[in-house]
Amino acid sequence: MKKFNIAVIPGDGIGPEVIDEGIKVLNKAAEMDTSFQFSFTYFPWGCEFYLKNGKMMDPDAIQQLQEFDAIYLGAIGFPGVPDHISLRDLLLNIRKNFDQYVNLRPVKLLKGAPSPLISIANENIDMLFIRENSEGEYAGEGNWLYKGKSHEVVLQNSVFSRKGTERIIRMAFETAKKEGRSLTSISKANALNYSMVFWDEIFEEVKSEYPEVETSSLLVDAAAMLMVKDPKRFEVVVTSNLFGDILTDLGAAIAGGIGLAAGANINPERKYPSMFEPVHGSAPDIAGKDISNPLASIWSASQMLDFFGYKKYAQAAIDAIETLLLEGQILTPDMNGTSSTSEVGDRIVSIMERMI
Amino acid sequence: MKKFNIAVIPGDGIGPEVIDEGIKVLNKAAEMDTSFQFSFTYFPWGCEFYLKNGKMMDPDAIQQLQEFDAIYLGAIGFPGVPDHISLRDLLLNIRKNFDQYVNLRPVKLLKGAPSPLISIANENIDMLFIRENSEGEYAGEGNWLYKGKSHEVVLQNSVFSRKGTERIIRMAFETAKKEGRSLTSISKANALNYSMVFWDEIFEEVKSEYPEVETSSLLVDAAAMLMVKDPKRFEVVVTSNLFGDILTDLGAAIAGGIGLAAGANINPERKYPSMFEPVHGSAPDIAGKDISNPLASIWSASQMLDFFGYKKYAQAAIDAIETLLLEGQILTPDMNGTSSTSEVGDRIVSIMERMI
Ligand SMILES: CC(C)[C@H](C(=O)O)[C@@H](O)C(=O)O
Ligand SMILES: CC(C)[C@H](C(=O)O)[C@@H](O)C(=O)O
Repeated sequence: MKKFNIAVIPGDGIGPEVIDEGIKVLNKAAEMDTSFQFSFTYFPWGCEFYLKNGKMMDPDAIQQLQEFDAIYLGAIGFPGVPDHISLRDLLLNIRKNFDQYVNLRPVKLLKGAPSPLISIANENIDMLFIRENSEGEYAGEGNWLYKGKSHEVVLQNSVFSRKGTERIIRMAFETAKKEGRSLTSISKANALNYSMVFWDEIFEEVKSEYPEVETSSLLVDAAAMLMVKDPKRFEVVVTSNLFGDILTDLGAAIAGGIGLAAGANINPERKYPSMFEPVHGSAPDIAGKDISNPLASIWSASQMLDFFGYKKYAQAAIDAIETLLLEGQILTPDMNGTSSTSEVGDRIVSIMERMI
Repeated sequence: MKKFNIAVIPGDGIGPEVIDEGIKVLNKAAEMDTSFQFSFTYFPWGCEFYLKNGKMMDPDAIQQLQEFDAIYLGAIGFPGVPDHISLRDLLLNIRKNFDQYVNLRPVKLLKGAPSPLISIANENIDMLFIRENSEGEYAGEGNWLYKGKSHEVVLQNSVFSRKGTERIIRMAFETAKKEGRSLTSISKANALNYSMVFWDEIFEEVKSEYPEVETSSLLVDAAAMLMVKDPKRFEVVVTSNLFGDILTDLGAAIAGGIGLAAGANINPERKYPSMFEPVHGSAPDIAGKDISNPLASIWSASQMLDFFGYKKYAQAAIDAIETLLLEGQILTPDMNGTSSTSEVGDRIVSIMERMI
């Protein structure tokens, strides 16, 4: 029997509630398939921890997490702790330390999911964003000069390495090739005259190794426009850290809302643990009321099952979300329902059970 | 009689065609109001010029342009000339040299204009984007190290000066105050730990001088989502160069399409000429066929009239566009019509005439 050790960081606000429901899904899969099981270890890190201890995590957090097979993260952020502390010191810190250089974000409009786009444009929104997740605009490099003076100037430096750029683009080509889908690269060479010229060059270089993959290259501004006007033209998409951040949130908006957006932070070599998280924030205003939407957290649990090789259960979880949306009975208030967080999770696992 | 000297750079592809129609509108305004007139001087700069002369403009182009009251630009870009040359050396070069630090982009859904959003969300899309246009991510600063080596690394540096950041934010507060509308600042301090922390600080600083202006602050990813989900929450918006680029194209997509998007590059001190341009590209595939859509170019002519203080004619041009869209008879093929570029322009001026 295979055992997966999962480090759970429920985090702040609604994090703990939505994580609970994702864990139901993981446990249900393990219950249906006797060849594997999960063991969950909880870490109380986050903003409350920060307010008590002056740091977001234990000083040796990275060592502690290293031994796990995966990390399951709820949400981070709380009034009183600046985002650039809470998120950099926890989320971005883990992404970087564990070289989780691939951020996988499905932008898939399930049947029954709401979309603000009119139906014609709606058909078949099914993109897989492969976002660079370790460097680029998020390198955290810069300088703050002449603070408070009239000639004050602040620099923020993006860092694109050949290794970092090549590996994410190669990963995207591999994915597109395996899935038999087209690949769109999104950059901005007409304005970002170093980094994005480089990105485009590497894209062309790697492309020559994959003649079977149909490709296109878009400017980030044009891409934002086309995601709304013609979403079906996007299949596999590769882009930089910042552009991926912006465009996948836009993607969430057109494909069911942030309540359904999941993200996997992957270290493909499996040298370090990968991390799975709903994309939404900690929503402190609705925390503790048992009304938060657990579907994004459940979708990220599905990504974890997929990552461990259990595609059948991963797919069952997504299918269960689709069924739940189509039934339209058991939904949280953000989706115009009246059900609680745990009722949604319970319903998902019971649909999964029926399916398998 | 006031005379405005306009430098016209028709540029590439459909640039010259759409500029012609904008000039009809400017001349119509001058014809209806005998207190002012325009004089147009044409400059043949752009990609064709580049292919002949190895540069996008004359070496002393900036001096030549300096004496004009405004610049009217068509579109730049052509296959065979890399964008990072054509656009940096002409468009971005002019923006920077003439310190056109304000990029004004209306995102306003006219009656009769198409939008991919479901109608409920549609109501009252009327944003004014004030995009920083002189520095930030577009500073053009960086480094390319160890070219071709496995440890190759490319840096792109954003430069945010106190002066540059303060003046654009102040301009946005002034505009919001004058128009009695709310102001949204869009940044990304949770990831861009120098530049955007600084941006937010300056925003708070300047805000304290404008207690009468209602404000909010959004992360760029959340803003992209909200523009699609709840566009009416945005009124005046201030953001950085790159974020403004991405979000105004997204704005164009939800408010009638790129065929209607205009941009003004303003030097508010009027020390240097300001520049007016449709946001769309040069569309070489349809150039010369008299089917390109001149409405964005006409809208930018309206911005020019507004800039010179002729609000009545500026508004008449926008109203004429709205009337034309509502009539739905004389439209170019991109808007599902069968009319030519010049038919659309002629119709606009005849509606204007009727209106005033
Ligand atoms: C919270 C924030 C730092 C993060 C990011 O920008 O990457 C989030 O928006 C995301 O997309 O995962
Ligand atoms: C052409 C390009 C350099 C330019 C920009 O990015 O500013 C354009 O997209 C715009 O928005 O005016």
